Amino acid sequence: TQDPLANHRNQFALPEGVIYLDGNSLGALPHATRTRVQGVVAKEWGDGLIRSWNAANWIDLPRRVGAKIAQLIGAESHEVICADSTSINLFKVLATALRLQASSRDRKVIVSERTNFPTDLYVAQGLVDLLGQGHSLQLVEFDEAAAAIDERTAVVMLTHVNFKTGAMHDTPALTGRAHEAGALMVWDLSHSAGALPVTLNKADADIAVGCGYKYLNGGPGAPAFVFAAGRHLSAMANEPFAQPLAGWLGHRAPFEFDPDYRPAMSIDRFAVGTPSILGLSALEVGVDTVLAAGIDALRAKSIALTELFIRIVEAQCHGVALESPRNVQHRGSQVCFSHPHAYAVMQAMIARGVIGDFRAPDILRFGFAPLYVRYADVWDAAKCLHEVIAGSEWQRDEFHLKAAVT
Amino acid sequence: TQDPLANHRNQFALPEGVIYLDGNSLGALPHATRTRVQGVVAKEWGDGLIRSWNAANWIDLPRRVGAKIAQLIGAESHEVICADSTSINLFKVLATALRLQASSRDRKVIVSERTNFPTDLYVAQGLVDLLGQGHSLQLVEFDEAAAAIDERTAVVMLTHVNFKTGAMHDTPALTGRAHEAGALMVWDLSHSAGALPVTLNKADADIAVGCGYKYLNGGPGAPAFVFAAGRHLSAMANEPFAQPLAGWLGHRAPFEFDPDYRPAMSIDRFAVGTPSILGLSALEVGVDTVLAAGIDALRAKSIALTELFIRIVEAQCHGVALESPRNVQHRGSQVCFSHPHAYAVMQAMIARGVIGDFRAPDILRFGFAPLYVRYADVWDAAKCLHEVIAGSEWQRDEFHLKAAVT
Repeated sequence: TQDPLANHRNQFALPEGVIYLDGNSLGALPHATRTRVQGVVAKEWGDGLIRSWNAANWIDLPRRVGAKIAQLIGAESHEVICADSTSINLFKVLATALRLQASSRDRKVIVSERTNFPTDLYVAQGLVDLLGQGHSLQLVEFDEAAAAIDERTAVVMLTHVNFKTGAMHDTPALTGRAHEAGALMVWDLSHSAGALPVTLNKADADIAVGCGYKYLNGGPGAPAFVFAAGRHLSAMANEPFAQPLAGWLGHRAPFEFDPDYRPAMSIDRFAVGTPSILGLSALEVGVDTVLAAGIDALRAKSIALTELFIRIVEAQCHGVALESPRNVQHRGSQVCFSHPHAYAVMQAMIARGVIGDFRAPDILRFGFAPLYVRYADVWDAAKCLHEVIAGSEWQRDEFHLKAAVT
Repeated sequence: TQDPLANHRNQFALPEGVIYLDGNSLGALPHATRTRVQGVVAKEWGDGLIRSWNAANWIDLPRRVGAKIAQLIGAESHEVICADSTSINLFKVLATALRLQASSRDRKVIVSERTNFPTDLYVAQGLVDLLGQGHSLQLVEFDEAAAAIDERTAVVMLTHVNFKTGAMHDTPALTGRAHEAGALMVWDLSHSAGALPVTLNKADADIAVGCGYKYLNGGPGAPAFVFAAGRHLSAMANEPFAQPLAGWLGHRAPFEFDPDYRPAMSIDRFAVGTPSILGLSALEVGVDTVLAAGIDALRAKSIALTELFIRIVEAQCHGVALESPRNVQHRGSQVCFSHPHAYAVMQAMIARGVIGDFRAPDILRFGFAPLYVRYADVWDAAKCLHEVIAGSEWQRDEFHLKAAVT
């Protein structure tokens, strides 16, 4: 009752009997999204048809939603655009960063962390393989990134908050270290945007990407976003293929149907093909729910939720070990515990209506989306974990069957 | 009344007072899409939350919708997947085709047509610039592609039906010519899939892409699709980065969170990031409307509609010249006329409720989506064109203002 954000939960359509601790994987549905999507489908598409690109301003949606996300990540509105998926955007920004470093002929290494979300690593592997010519990806442990940056480093690619442990990097310190060594810094904000304040421009950040369907509540497979600092957009002005995924909506004048690519002089150059209007419309509503609460208030509640959860679980549950940083300054909005039977334990919890995630090999992952997770949920989830571990239900066969997606 | 497809129009929510001849730009809304999207949002996302990746089979949607599209383009169900945008998919398939040709060291040229849809050219320009090392894009006129293919050609990239004139290439002949010269063939089916039968495997096609929001009625910015012939999927088996946009959903086992990319051995390797579930769900309904009518019946009606339109317009309208092929065997499902005041004429027609397209510099473009365009619409549209040209309303200032998107 003392939670200043308590009423914000009413914006969401959460099912009865469920405690949802997986908003870091797929954010919950805002009620307003249903109305918005219905309107986009029936009125804008059905009645407006092709006219809605102008009349309903579909053409501006990628920039308009980007400008809203900019407020959450410490960027200027003209530095962010929504487009494609996080993976595709990673390819764009890594290739762009390497291009911006092309004059330094001995800088061909992308430094990243072995425990990064795999798609980040795959995209980098695909890119260095495509480029050849000595480009490579160097993987280090989570805490070793700063030490690994040297005069051969072209780009440092790190995820702000780790997808598994919730461990959080120090963005200003690492960005500073990269710049000191002459490298560019690419941040993946997938597990931080919408959950905690990110201060890209204050950290002098270069380029970043992030996900729309986690804490931004954009819906399954929502469009992702790209940030590029204004100074880099200027530097790219005379390099038409600095961003190599050259599509018509990244052209300066897409509707002139010019056979030669002339890139937009703005963040639009990170646009490629025709954007998903259903996806962007749902994402806009999701981002609005975050803006309405305020990112500082969300972080304050997130800290309180995760601190409380750790305290109760450690007091009550046997056989679990905290795998997230204990210091909240180094932790995002999720808490992970290891347990030798983590997979089955999580399946048993889900069967009781407490939805978290299993991550191989032995991680129980609990996300605390502060917009809709209540303090009472923390107590109930910890009690559920205690009961499942203390009892024998996790031993039932059904909780050991692996589904296609876990 | 004698149109065997007349009832299929009832599947669509077309606004009163509008004759819609722009289904080649954005297909109309099927009624069933509203219900489907509402269900996906409220039930699958809202109630199911993260569980819907398994419970609602979201994870299979890209392949399931791809298998349906396969039926329309003469492919096997395991050869097609839905993903990303047409532009992004073009990058994937061009890079893949160049990779498959990498052993032929003197083949570094992509041959395409100057009048191709610009995004196709931009993507190719971005790719050859990224690769360097002698790769280049050679542009020729529409009818010169066959003659331009030689021993330096790695890939021929053509759009089956031209976005502006509706002129249609002979897919078997050009594919055969490319193969004869040792080149691979990339087809863009954006203006043919869903409007006319495409026979990829019969033509021994290699790789293709296409658009979901035109004749497939998938909605604004719907996901696009990729086809790769089974023999190429096998050939790529030992080349992890043959498709260089390496994302987690192209991995053989995405949920093992392996830090090393090991590509799927199937068409899945053209998947990259998390797909748009709203977009794919709407696209599935759109594709179902095409399958229900049958692609041969659609082609027969499309031919009749375009023949009729050409005949009436040429008999009644002054100052227009047919820019589409007169021979229906060489024409897709659209008809273009040039007129010196095409922009204003089209604006005046739109104001009267007949929605076609203007394409620079002087083209009036009319798309005949045979699923919902009626023979009566052909008469009424031609009458409207006649009246606008014969009268003076096109001279009104309001019809000369250019909107953001035309």
